[in-house]
Amino acid sequence: MLFHVRMDVTLPHDLDPNRRAELVQAERERTLELQKMGVLPHLWRVVGQYGDICVFDVPSNDELHAFLSSLPLREFMRVEVTPLATHPSDLTAQP
Amino acid sequence: MLFHVRMDVTLPHDLDPNRRAELVQAERERTLELQKMGVLPHLWRVVGQYGDICVFDVPSNDELHAFLSSLPLREFMRVEVTPLATHPSDLTAQP
Amino acid sequence: MLFHVRMDVTLPHDLDPNRRAELVQAERERTLELQKMGVLPHLWRVVGQYGDICVFDVPSNDELHAFLSSLPLREFMRVEVTPLATHPSDLTAQP
Amino acid sequence: MLFHVRMDVTLPHDLDPNRRAELVQAERERTLELQKMGVLPHLWRVVGQYGDICVFDVPSNDELHAFLSSLPLREFMRVEVTPLATHPSDLTAQP
Amino acid sequence: MLFHVRMDVTLPHDLDPNRRAELVQAERERTLELQKMGVLPHLWRVVGQYGDICVFDVPSNDELHAFLSSLPLREFMRVEVTPLATHPSDLTAQP
Amino acid sequence: MLFHVRMDVTLPHDLDPNRRAELVQAERERTLELQKMGVLPHLWRVVGQYGDICVFDVPSNDELHAFLSSLPLREFMRVEVTPLATHPSDLTAQP
Amino acid sequence: MLFHVRMDVTLPHDLDPNRRAELVQAERERTLELQKMGVLPHLWRVVGQYGDICVFDVPSNDELHAFLSSLPLREFMRVEVTPLATHPSDLTAQP
Amino acid sequence: MLFHVRMDVTLPHDLDPNRRAELVQAERERTLELQKMGVLPHLWRVVGQYGDICVFDVPSNDELHAFLSSLPLREFMRVEVTPLATHPSDLTAQP
Amino acid sequence: MLFHVRMDVTLPHDLDPNRRAELVQAERERTLELQKMGVLPHLWRVVGQYGDICVFDVPSNDELHAFLSSLPLREFMRVEVTPLATHPSDLTAQP
Amino acid sequence: MLFHVRMDVTLPHDLDPNRRAELVQAERERTLELQKMGVLPHLWRVVGQYGDICVFDVPSNDELHAFLSSLPLREFMRVEVTPLATHPSDLTAQP
Repeated sequence: MLFHVRMDVTLPHDLDPNRRAELVQAERERTLELQKMGVLPHLWRVVGQYGDICVFDVPSNDELHAFLSSLPLREFMRVEVTPLATHPSDLTAQP
Repeated sequence: MLFHVRMDVTLPHDLDPNRRAELVQAERERTLELQKMGVLPHLWRVVGQYGDICVFDVPSNDELHAFLSSLPLREFMRVEVTPLATHPSDLTAQP
Repeated sequence: MLFHVRMDVTLPHDLDPNRRAELVQAERERTLELQKMGVLPHLWRVVGQYGDICVFDVPSNDELHAFLSSLPLREFMRVEVTPLATHPSDLTAQP
Repeated sequence: MLFHVRMDVTLPHDLDPNRRAELVQAERERTLELQKMGVLPHLWRVVGQYGDICVFDVPSNDELHAFLSSLPLREFMRVEVTPLATHPSDLTAQP
Repeated sequence: MLFHVRMDVTLPHDLDPNRRAELVQAERERTLELQKMGVLPHLWRVVGQYGDICVFDVPSNDELHAFLSSLPLREFMRVEVTPLATHPSDLTAQP
Repeated sequence: MLFHVRMDVTLPHDLDPNRRAELVQAERERTLELQKMGVLPHLWRVVGQYGDICVFDVPSNDELHAFLSSLPLREFMRVEVTPLATHPSDLTAQP
Repeated sequence: MLFHVRMDVTLPHDLDPNRRAELVQAERERTLELQKMGVLPHLWRVVGQYGDICVFDVPSNDELHAFLSSLPLREFMRVEVTPLATHPSDLTAQP
Repeated sequence: MLFHVRMDVTLPHDLDPNRRAELVQAERERTLELQKMGVLPHLWRVVGQYGDICVFDVPSNDELHAFLSSLPLREFMRVEVTPLATHPSDLTAQP
Repeated sequence: MLFHVRMDVTLPHDLDPNRRAELVQAERERTLELQKMGVLPHLWRVVGQYGDICVFDVPSNDELHAFLSSLPLREFMRVEVTPLATHPSDLTAQP
Repeated sequence: MLFHVRMDVTLPHDLDPNRRAELVQAERERTLELQKMGVLPHLWRVVGQYGDICVFDVPSNDELHAFLSSLPLREFMRVEVTPLATHPSDLTAQP
C-alpha cells in the first residue's frame, strides 16, 4: 500500500554542530536501511529545499507511523502524508 | 530530469455528458501514450480525490510544458509542478 | 485500518430540484449501507455545516478510494483524507 | 454532547529532557484517566504527526474547556475544537 | 451554553429578484423569532459586509445545528461556529 | 460604538514564572476594571484556547487603540479588530 | 474617525453590457459625491487591479456601513475594513 | 523602473469559441507590441500553467496601470505586481 | 509616485530594554524626518496593532527601497508594498 | 533552461555580528561569481524586503539544486522555485 510523504527539515541555527552532524548521518543511514527493506521505493530531494518527496510501501497505517517515527530527524521535520491508490490509467496495472 | 506534478480536475456540473465522456476517454488514451513513451514513469490516484500525483521524466522545461499542455483535460485542471533532484541518500544513486 | 474523512458538500443553487432530491436520498441509502457493511464505524454531522466527519475502516487505500468514489454526492464534495494510527495511550489497546 | 478535537504538539527542542519525560508521562496518565471517566470515547494518533484526533463527550462547553485545560502538554499544543451533531443517516440513531 | 457564529451571505447575481426578496424577508422574520425565543441573545452586522456575528444560547450541539439549518438563507451562507466558555475574569460571573 | 476583538495569547515557554504570574494577575485586574468602566460589555473564553472573544464599546478608534494598548499581556497577544454595526433585524433596535 | 477600506471588484463576465455600463457610471457618481461630502478624503486605484484603497472619515461604524452599502457596485465587491488610529509620530498631530 | 508581474488567466469554459480565439489573438498582438515598445523586456510562460511571469520597464505606476489595463485578456486575469529595485550585487550595476 | 506600505513590528521579548528604547526612539525620529522631507505624506497606526499603514511619495522604486531600508526597526518589521495609481474618480484629479 | 527563484532571508536577531558580516559578504561574492559564470542572468531586490527575485539558467534540476545549496545564506533563506518555459509571444523567440 503506497503513501506519498513530503518531509521538510528545519534545523535550529543554534543546534550544537556535533549533534547536527550525528543526526544528519543517522538520518542518512536510516534512509538507506528503509530502502534496502523495500519500504521506501522512491525518494527525491525537492530542488532548492532541505526537503524530500518520498513514496512508502507499507502493509498498514500503524507501520507507516512507526517507520516515520523512527527517523532521526523526525523532531525537526514537518511531515505531510497522502494515501495513494492505483491510477485507473496506470499502464502496469492494465489487465 | 524529473518533475513532480500534482493535478486536480474539476469538471463543471453542467458540462455536456457526451463531451465529458469524450474528454475522459481522450485523457485516458493520452496518459497511456505518455507512459509508453517513457515520459511518465509514475502516476497515482490520490485517495478520495479526482486528482493525480505524477512524476514526469523529460529533457527540458519546454518539453514538460508541451506535454502538460497536450492533456485533453488540461483546461479543467489545477496543476502544480515541483522540480526534483537526486536524493543524496538514494540507494540506486550511490557510487 | 482507520481513516479520518472530512466531507463538505456544495450543491449548485441551480441544480434541478428532482435531481437534488434523488441525489440526497441515494447518498442517504449508500451511507446506511456502508455502516451495515462495517466500513463506516463513525459518522457525525459538523454543527452548522452541510458537512460530515467520518471514520472509515478498510483493508487498503484502494478500497477506501472505491468506497469514496461510490458516494452519489461525490461530484459535489470536497474530501480530505487523514490516515489514523493506534494511539499509544488508547485504553482499549493497552496490553 | 460530542466535540471533535484536533491537537498538535510542538515541544521546544531545548526543553530540559527530564521535564519533557515528566510532561509526556503525565499527559499519558491524564489521557488514560479521561478515557476511564468516559469523557474521551475516541482518540487516534495522526499518521506521521505528533498529533491526535479525539472525540470528547461532555455535558457543556465549560466542562470541555476545563478538561482541555487540564492536559499537562496543553501549553505546547495547538488545539482546534469542532462541535458535532447527530448525523441524519447515523444507523444507530435511526428510529 | 454559548456559541459564537460568524455568517457570511453570498447571493448569486442571477438569482430571481422575487425569490431574493422572499428569502431576505423570511430570514429577517426567522431572526426576529429566534431572538424572541431567547436563542439569539446577540447579533451584529459586520461593517462593510453582508455578514453577521451572532451569539447563540442553546442547550446542546444538536439544537444549535437545528436552529442554523432553519435559516432561510442557509444555502447561501458560509458559517463558522466557535464554542464559548465563561471567561475567568468575567465580572458578572465572579463569586 | 461596538468593536469585536479576538485576542490570542502566546506566552514564551522560557518566560520567568514570577513575571508570568504578575502579568496574568495584572491582565485580570485590567480586564475587571474595563468591565466596571462599561468599556467591555462582553467577554468570553474560546473553548480549548488561551484566547478571548470580546466586544468593546468605545466612543472612537483612538480610544479603542488606547484601551487595547493598556492590556498588560498586549505584547504576547495576536489581536484582530472587527467594527460592528447595528443589525437590521436586531429586536432591541426595532422602532 | 478614519477607516482604511480595500475594495476589489469582480464583475461576472456574462453581465449584460448595458447593466455593466450603468453600474460603473453610478459607482463613479457616488464616489465623486462621497468626496464632495468630505466622507472619502483619500482614494487610489491599486496598480494592475480593478480594486481601490480608500480612507473614509466618518462619525461612527453605523455611518461607515451605510456609506459602503450605498455603493452601486457593492454586490460585486470584496470589502476589507481596517480601523485607523492617530500615529504617535504623525507630524501634523504633534503638540 | 522595473516591476515583476505575475499573470494567471482563467477563461470561462462556456466562453464563445470565436470570442475566445479573438481575445487570445489580440492578447498575442498586444504582447508583441509592448515588447517592441521596450516596455516588456522579459516574459516567460510558467511551466504547466496558463500564466506568465513578466518584467515591465515603465516610467511610473500610472503608466504601468495603463499598460496592464490595455491587455485584451485583462478581465480574465489574476494579476500580482511586485516593485523591483536594483540588486546590491548586480554585476551590471557595479561601479 | 505613491506606494501603500503596511508595516508590522514584532520585537523579540528578550531584546535588551535599553536597545529597545533606543530603536523605538530612532524610529520615531526617522519617521518625523521622512514626513518633513515630504516623502511620507500619510501614516496611521492600525487599531490594536503594533503596525502602521503609510503612503510614500517617491520618484522611483530604488528610492522607496532606500527609505524603507533606512528605518531603524526595519529588521523587526514585516513590510508589504502596493503600488498606487491615480483613481479615475479622484475628485482632485478631474479635468 | 530557466528557473524563476524567489529567495527571502531572515537572519536571527541574536546572530553574532561578525558571523553575520562574514555570511553577507560571502553571499555577495558567490552571487557575483554565479553571474560571471552565466548561471544567474537576472537578479533583482524586491522593494522593501530582504529578498530577491532571480532567474537561473542551468542545464538540469540537479545543477540548479547544487547552485542553490552553495549559497552561504542558504540556511536562513526561504526559497521558492518555478520552472519557466519559452513564452509563445516572446518577440526574441519568433521564427
